[in-house]
Amino acid sequence: MPETQPFELAAPLQQDSCFVADWPLCQLRVINDQQYPWFLLIPRRPGLKELIDLTPADYLQYHQESWQLAAWLRQCFRPDKLNIAALGNMVPQLHIHHIARFKHDKAWPAPVWGVAKMQPYQPAALQQQIGQWRQSLPAWPS
Amino acid sequence: MPETQPFELAAPLQQDSCFVADWPLCQLRVINDQQYPWFLLIPRRPGLKELIDLTPADYLQYHQESWQLAAWLRQCFRPDKLNIAALGNMVPQLHIHHIARFKHDKAWPAPVWGVAKMQPYQPAALQQQIGQWRQSLPAWPS
Repeated sequence: MPETQPFELAAPLQQDSCFVADWPLCQLRVINDQQYPWFLLIPRRPGLKELIDLTPADYLQYHQESWQLAAWLRQCFRPDKLNIAALGNMVPQLHIHHIARFKHDKAWPAPVWGVAKMQPYQPAALQQQIGQWRQSLPAWPS
Repeated sequence: MPETQPFELAAPLQQDSCFVADWPLCQLRVINDQQYPWFLLIPRRPGLKELIDLTPADYLQYHQESWQLAAWLRQCFRPDKLNIAALGNMVPQLHIHHIARFKHDKAWPAPVWGVAKMQPYQPAALQQQIGQWRQSLPAWPS
């Protein structure tokens, strides 16, 4: 894949989630559904569909970022379980779900996909929440 | 977690899947459901619940094994999409699903969990199939 080809976010991902941060490889976004703490890591490379489409160096970097996100989710939300999944049957652009799950959440113990209609945050509340998360999210060396 | 504690496979994993191979870190098993090529990687370490419970060295090794399995799944089955997921809401022992998905499969485009009742292989056919898969699965240095 030529390096000159720009990274573009697929429209459904843009629509369902909000920007949180750009990490060295991935864009971190949050799904606009207040029923679950539900984040996405999206490698900022064009034309990716599978994790094994990443270069070996990017594959290592992705898993460092996934580790950091998962550790933060566990510390921040104290979930009963983390769910980490690369599915993409509907939106083929590579995006990896990282979700803090609770025994009292709407879908438990099923996976979250397709269970409950999304309940968007109030826009101002979401921006305030994202601002708070940014205070505790891992900072990467620039 | 003390090294002396043995690895034990959780009963539901034992029941729903069959042994394929022991890789350096993980046991590779196949879910006994002929509707999907559906494999599990289960790190052979006691007491694991999350990917971030792995030591850093095991975390790297796991992702090498996941890469190998995913590449083999793509080459062997030519799926429309791979689904790779660490869920574990029902069975907490760390196990990571690797599934070859097709536009014509029973659950598409939904995730496979909870969609269709499992359709077990005939036992002899499954053992024959596993024997064939072993011929093409990656061999690890001992």
